[in-house]
Amino acid sequence: MEYSGNQVKDINIAYIGGGSKGWAWALMGDLAMESDLSGTVKLYDLNYEAAHVNSMIGNSLNRRDDVKGKWQYQSVETLEKALTGADFVIISILPGTFKEMTSDVNLPQEYGIYQSVGDTTGPGGIVRALRTIPMYVEMAEAIKAYCPDAWVINYTNPMTLCTRTLTEIFPEIKVMGCCHEIFGAQKLLASMLKDLKGIEDVGYRDITVNVLGINHFTWIDEASYQGTDLMPIYREFVDRYYESGYEEKPGQWMNSFFSSACRVQFDLFRRYGLLAASGDRHLAEFMPRAWYLKDPETVKSWKFSLTPIDFRMKRQEELAHKSKRLAAGQESVQLKPSGEEGICMMKALLGLGDFVTNVNVPNQGQIKGLPLGSVVETNALLVRDGVKPVLAGQLPLDIENLVARHVLNQETVLKAALRKDKSLAFRAFLNDPLVSIDIGAAEQLFERMLQNTKAYLPGWDV
Amino acid sequence: MEYSGNQVKDINIAYIGGGSKGWAWALMGDLAMESDLSGTVKLYDLNYEAAHVNSMIGNSLNRRDDVKGKWQYQSVETLEKALTGADFVIISILPGTFKEMTSDVNLPQEYGIYQSVGDTTGPGGIVRALRTIPMYVEMAEAIKAYCPDAWVINYTNPMTLCTRTLTEIFPEIKVMGCCHEIFGAQKLLASMLKDLKGIEDVGYRDITVNVLGINHFTWIDEASYQGTDLMPIYREFVDRYYESGYEEKPGQWMNSFFSSACRVQFDLFRRYGLLAASGDRHLAEFMPRAWYLKDPETVKSWKFSLTPIDFRMKRQEELAHKSKRLAAGQESVQLKPSGEEGICMMKALLGLGDFVTNVNVPNQGQIKGLPLGSVVETNALLVRDGVKPVLAGQLPLDIENLVARHVLNQETVLKAALRKDKSLAFRAFLNDPLVSIDIGAAEQLFERMLQNTKAYLPGWDV
Amino acid sequence: MEYSGNQVKDINIAYIGGGSKGWAWALMGDLAMESDLSGTVKLYDLNYEAAHVNSMIGNSLNRRDDVKGKWQYQSVETLEKALTGADFVIISILPGTFKEMTSDVNLPQEYGIYQSVGDTTGPGGIVRALRTIPMYVEMAEAIKAYCPDAWVINYTNPMTLCTRTLTEIFPEIKVMGCCHEIFGAQKLLASMLKDLKGIEDVGYRDITVNVLGINHFTWIDEASYQGTDLMPIYREFVDRYYESGYEEKPGQWMNSFFSSACRVQFDLFRRYGLLAASGDRHLAEFMPRAWYLKDPETVKSWKFSLTPIDFRMKRQEELAHKSKRLAAGQESVQLKPSGEEGICMMKALLGLGDFVTNVNVPNQGQIKGLPLGSVVETNALLVRDGVKPVLAGQLPLDIENLVARHVLNQETVLKAALRKDKSLAFRAFLNDPLVSIDIGAAEQLFERMLQNTKAYLPGWDV
Amino acid sequence: MEYSGNQVKDINIAYIGGGSKGWAWALMGDLAMESDLSGTVKLYDLNYEAAHVNSMIGNSLNRRDDVKGKWQYQSVETLEKALTGADFVIISILPGTFKEMTSDVNLPQEYGIYQSVGDTTGPGGIVRALRTIPMYVEMAEAIKAYCPDAWVINYTNPMTLCTRTLTEIFPEIKVMGCCHEIFGAQKLLASMLKDLKGIEDVGYRDITVNVLGINHFTWIDEASYQGTDLMPIYREFVDRYYESGYEEKPGQWMNSFFSSACRVQFDLFRRYGLLAASGDRHLAEFMPRAWYLKDPETVKSWKFSLTPIDFRMKRQEELAHKSKRLAAGQESVQLKPSGEEGICMMKALLGLGDFVTNVNVPNQGQIKGLPLGSVVETNALLVRDGVKPVLAGQLPLDIENLVARHVLNQETVLKAALRKDKSLAFRAFLNDPLVSIDIGAAEQLFERMLQNTKAYLPGWDV
Repeated sequence: MEYSGNQVKDINIAYIGGGSKGWAWALMGDLAMESDLSGTVKLYDLNYEAAHVNSMIGNSLNRRDDVKGKWQYQSVETLEKALTGADFVIISILPGTFKEMTSDVNLPQEYGIYQSVGDTTGPGGIVRALRTIPMYVEMAEAIKAYCPDAWVINYTNPMTLCTRTLTEIFPEIKVMGCCHEIFGAQKLLASMLKDLKGIEDVGYRDITVNVLGINHFTWIDEASYQGTDLMPIYREFVDRYYESGYEEKPGQWMNSFFSSACRVQFDLFRRYGLLAASGDRHLAEFMPRAWYLKDPETVKSWKFSLTPIDFRMKRQEELAHKSKRLAAGQESVQLKPSGEEGICMMKALLGLGDFVTNVNVPNQGQIKGLPLGSVVETNALLVRDGVKPVLAGQLPLDIENLVARHVLNQETVLKAALRKDKSLAFRAFLNDPLVSIDIGAAEQLFERMLQNTKAYLPGWDV
Repeated sequence: MEYSGNQVKDINIAYIGGGSKGWAWALMGDLAMESDLSGTVKLYDLNYEAAHVNSMIGNSLNRRDDVKGKWQYQSVETLEKALTGADFVIISILPGTFKEMTSDVNLPQEYGIYQSVGDTTGPGGIVRALRTIPMYVEMAEAIKAYCPDAWVINYTNPMTLCTRTLTEIFPEIKVMGCCHEIFGAQKLLASMLKDLKGIEDVGYRDITVNVLGINHFTWIDEASYQGTDLMPIYREFVDRYYESGYEEKPGQWMNSFFSSACRVQFDLFRRYGLLAASGDRHLAEFMPRAWYLKDPETVKSWKFSLTPIDFRMKRQEELAHKSKRLAAGQESVQLKPSGEEGICMMKALLGLGDFVTNVNVPNQGQIKGLPLGSVVETNALLVRDGVKPVLAGQLPLDIENLVARHVLNQETVLKAALRKDKSLAFRAFLNDPLVSIDIGAAEQLFERMLQNTKAYLPGWDV
Repeated sequence: MEYSGNQVKDINIAYIGGGSKGWAWALMGDLAMESDLSGTVKLYDLNYEAAHVNSMIGNSLNRRDDVKGKWQYQSVETLEKALTGADFVIISILPGTFKEMTSDVNLPQEYGIYQSVGDTTGPGGIVRALRTIPMYVEMAEAIKAYCPDAWVINYTNPMTLCTRTLTEIFPEIKVMGCCHEIFGAQKLLASMLKDLKGIEDVGYRDITVNVLGINHFTWIDEASYQGTDLMPIYREFVDRYYESGYEEKPGQWMNSFFSSACRVQFDLFRRYGLLAASGDRHLAEFMPRAWYLKDPETVKSWKFSLTPIDFRMKRQEELAHKSKRLAAGQESVQLKPSGEEGICMMKALLGLGDFVTNVNVPNQGQIKGLPLGSVVETNALLVRDGVKPVLAGQLPLDIENLVARHVLNQETVLKAALRKDKSLAFRAFLNDPLVSIDIGAAEQLFERMLQNTKAYLPGWDV
Repeated sequence: MEYSGNQVKDINIAYIGGGSKGWAWALMGDLAMESDLSGTVKLYDLNYEAAHVNSMIGNSLNRRDDVKGKWQYQSVETLEKALTGADFVIISILPGTFKEMTSDVNLPQEYGIYQSVGDTTGPGGIVRALRTIPMYVEMAEAIKAYCPDAWVINYTNPMTLCTRTLTEIFPEIKVMGCCHEIFGAQKLLASMLKDLKGIEDVGYRDITVNVLGINHFTWIDEASYQGTDLMPIYREFVDRYYESGYEEKPGQWMNSFFSSACRVQFDLFRRYGLLAASGDRHLAEFMPRAWYLKDPETVKSWKFSLTPIDFRMKRQEELAHKSKRLAAGQESVQLKPSGEEGICMMKALLGLGDFVTNVNVPNQGQIKGLPLGSVVETNALLVRDGVKPVLAGQLPLDIENLVARHVLNQETVLKAALRKDKSLAFRAFLNDPLVSIDIGAAEQLFERMLQNTKAYLPGWDV
């Protein structure tokens, strides 16, 4: 890397999952809009062809006048090539294919277990983790071997266990898991200020929050805008919109599988007194099955959706078409902020401005009451070459209990995956709040799900 | 107190719940058989008359030739009188009456929640705790005022929360909760040695175990007899008796509401790999409802019983008759060891011999992974005026998760009881593994249960 | 308080020690230059007259055109009046008088113990603490009674023990201790950049540091400016200036009792590898007596000074004259930044902009390896109504040992002061690295020092 | 191993340092007097010849009628041979020779540093540790390779660092460090009971104590005999004998380099209020130089001695003669208890009876306030295949500070030895309370001491 004033050149980024559609383009767009950084992005993907197409798309940007940040994109055939010399490693992969994801999400439905996402917790999240952990073991070892000083930013779900696997295998790794769900909560609070107080143009960055918990099950216990404590206003907001739910564009949840009307969040606030800072689709999956995901009617009554894998597949197909058009120059990458903060984070780590945001890193005491070493989500201060968690305090006992159950379950899943211990994995599976079915049925479901993902479980006796 | 060699005279014991039938007589018997101790027992009970009758029964022992330990029994009208000057305080009360216990156990059945005991966890255990905590707050304050240096031994259930309330209100209190369930596991291991290895006459004290967990949900991860590791033998034992269950007298579980065939214990061993050191009736209540307590048929298939309150009431009536006969001299207290270790413990605390046994005291690090300050059960070294927990290590992650959920729930119940916070209490109630029913139904059940126990909830808004 | 946009009116500040010369005027100046805040400052001082004069000086500012922030100054007779209604409490007092300080600093010299400051550690710091703690007990109780929600900013030395006393007596207090010594280290690093790299105009705020330790004995293990790691450059800097020392204006240390040539800091870096982030006069006092303070010649050779109390008294006299002139309008308060960050901190706490700086607060895990609850110095994130320490990591073992010794000694001093336990206080005294003299001599010295400060030790048996 | 009732045959013991004179014979004697155990002892020593002579001495015991425990002794040439198949490993070596010990003890005297023992702390203890740690690294690796399940009992000094090195290199090792110093304190208390209360025949095992600290700097905060609290009696005892000192045989300290009159212990009790449970010769070395070891006169005034290495050498010579006579059958091993508890410990670990005694093992929470993982000394419960520390509580702050300083210094020495980091080692050296001399002199002393021990510092740059 080479610094000149506030600009840094010759940055090397390794992008694992660099053949992705959507995520890769978002990064390209963000990099293109940032004038202070430039360098090379090495795209690595199990699907080399996809990475190669993306390299063409990425390089085509350099010819555009509206592009401020110039980057070279290279597709590479091996992890080693991607990682060697890397200053940053971005990991954003799909663990397995939609075939496995279909099993993760649909099979449990046969047993009465409905999942709105299926990638973080619940039977789907757990089996996805079992499949993903060996991949992350490999990455951790490769990073240790080829770029031990690089900063690693993980975007893949299950966020906690992906990040946690890296720190387990290579404890000195410089890593953080990044997720935009908290920004959603901040944006909601900004909307609330407009809706209830008539305050316009509040950006989500203007909302200061204290967050604590684990990814997709993070809680806000303090929120403010300038001198105003937002918690009492949020209470008012919940009271007003508890029944109807709240959306910027009312009814949107019915048209988008990714939207919700925040009714789950509102209900959790009424019950527990803190703001659960994630989308309803994620939150619902962490609670007992009977609460929000009992059956499709219940889900509908809470005004959110079960995201069908069909839909994801169809979207993927559209993206494949778009990819071809982009590569062929028939369409061009749109330059609009992705809503991720990856670039800001890289800038802070490069020394171009300290920055506070939420990250997923091992608990070194930033959350009291949760096990040290487990990956948790809180604010952190990002400085040159450093991510320093901000002390977030402790969750109220009753919420801590809900969260701790998942934390210990996740640690159990990690241990089971590393030991290839099916029995231990099943005990974790059985202890998930969504798996409150008969043990016999649970055993059958687990067995079938493992069978469907067995290609990704090397060394397992399944 | 006055020492002379290994004998101690003029010991003062305050017995709270001193009108009890059964427990009080057991203590009288144990004291009568111990030649090294003598003094005065002050019997205090909300039912003064019962305490008075017991004092007559107790004093009648002194006239018997086979009684080695001579004690004066006095019934007293107030806690102050009982506690003033006490060296030891024994607490063994029934919190409320069988009327409330009927509600604790039977009402949940209307909602499909079956409880085999209903005094420790589950809806019954939680509501019983809410009712009991205010009584223990009063006792803690009285002990602080009248005998802050006395050693307090608690026998009342819910053991953990009774003991925990005392330490919350008067942190310097010298207290331990004592329970014989672990001895049951040690006796089972002795039986096993006879059954599988033909080794006779092994006493339960000859079996060394490492215990860790919370009362009635304690786990043994190491067990030995002389040079023999008992864990592999226990595995063999479980394999042999998994289906049939094991009892000293086969079929006894059908004739006694307090017996079981250890099938739940065996099943937990198969699943988790450690020996759950409590009776099946208790163990079942800590696990998800669908496992062992789904319905009466399931219970029967696991070869244990739901203890009916009717039966407890009937037994109480019989004891009332026996009480009259004892007081009238028509019958006399039988001198046989009660199976409790209270006297041994007192002797150790008096300096008459160091002693290792299991106790319930606040976690000062004896169990890694569970919150400091919560009451846990492990071995401790008892010395003159001291109870020093032995480091028990850490539970495997998957079991720790099961136990931690109850620990945090119990701490939540304590907080709710002290704050008289119904909403918080309900959150704990809802998070109990047995309460996996619809929220609406749970709310109704909780409300009804509180109504039935409301006389014991001073200051609550119910 | 009343918010309007980014401006806050009607703020109430209680200033304890409000009759001070110098500190009070600095605050007045800083407030006057800040256009976003206004309100009332209540000046409380044991010397009411001094507070009253200061109120006149403060109010005179409002008539000036160059004053942007308008504040009313009131002198009040009681703590209660000062604190009632306060949003902020600023504490900046002289504990005792220069008479006691003379004893603190000069008496030990008779025993061969030289102190460059004598207000933080060493015999002087310890006796000063014993004298100050009862005053802070009183303040803590008053704050609890009259303004429990106010934010308290302490500037008085001994910083650690003043702050720590407040948290001991009123654990829920919102307090931080603030000290500018770290800024000095940041300024030195800025100078270094100019000196070695020719980079001009770097402000101390542009230097990002990670700090950990205790007040006046804080260590920097990471420092950067934009993308540059400053630690290797600092090593170069130390190598160049190790012998000569470094000063912006060479030789200044000979003309100012408050200056030094950083030779102690450089020597500590050579030995321990981290940057000790305080002035040499403070650092020297934390190390063994023979290192930097053996005798006046040794002190001179390290290019710093023993600050004579005579000098402080003389300066105080000059300030008294200046006070008169200011009150009489013959001179006016100069509007230049004081170098303290108090106003920035208040703004952050009011919600006018999050802010990271170093503070002294109880250790909640921000420094691993030092006792929880003891007051430590690290960075913190200041937000609306919150001070959230940033995790600073752990000191290397050998430095941790140096710091821990002082931390435990300080905790011992606190305990001794609260219990009025002379023997315990002496044990702490004896364990200070500067007190490596014969025990008999130490006893005599301690006794004489206590006698001299006895008026401030109510209830002690001295 | 083969069990038959309470007897165990075919036990394999590896004795490292098996050529030792004195220690090896003591073990032989203890084993010979124990009828329940038998098997083989493999003697390994850098001096093979010495081990071989000892094997002859050991085997000669089997022909005697008064020997109850029959053991085969074999001298072996390699660690591998000694350890393979071992059930127990006993380590009792002299690290280096008396030549190095002469340097450890005598060289510091040239700089005014007097050491009464020189094997645990102080300049001698630190340099001895640097020399010993590489040997223990080798042993740890060999134990891991050849007998990972064996129980290791260390007797070598510096006890803490020898044991700690083993746990650092092979964390799963089953090890405890054993030392008889605490028994000395218990014996003193028994003598006290006779002297002050006329109670005869109290054995040291009848005195129950709570111990906490580090080896040779352990503190007793509770002591009792039957129902009696011994602490108030000890206070009386100290008052009576403070000036004169106390010895069973008055004046013995003048005739034996290993005796003392407990005046240091008494003085520490007067100052700190707890009983320092080690001989004065050890205790003095942990305190500041000026207290008890200022010069030979001071030492004499405290009624203990500086043990000259000449004396040790002479004794060694005598033992060499005795060795020859024993091997030649001209003299025979005396069967009297050695005063060590090694055999009792082995029996407990074999399952022949649970047992509570003091051990040196890593801190897992048994002492609050000292770092986890550092080796500390407290009571432990020894069971079949297990050593379970008993929670000992926390030292008072002022004593904790004294102890923590040594703990952190020892950890620093370990780190320095493993990294071969001379500068770090020197920082630890300099921070020892005995090394309160000029830095320049300290540097020279350290350099000279290292030179003298350099043959044992492979890979160091010295």
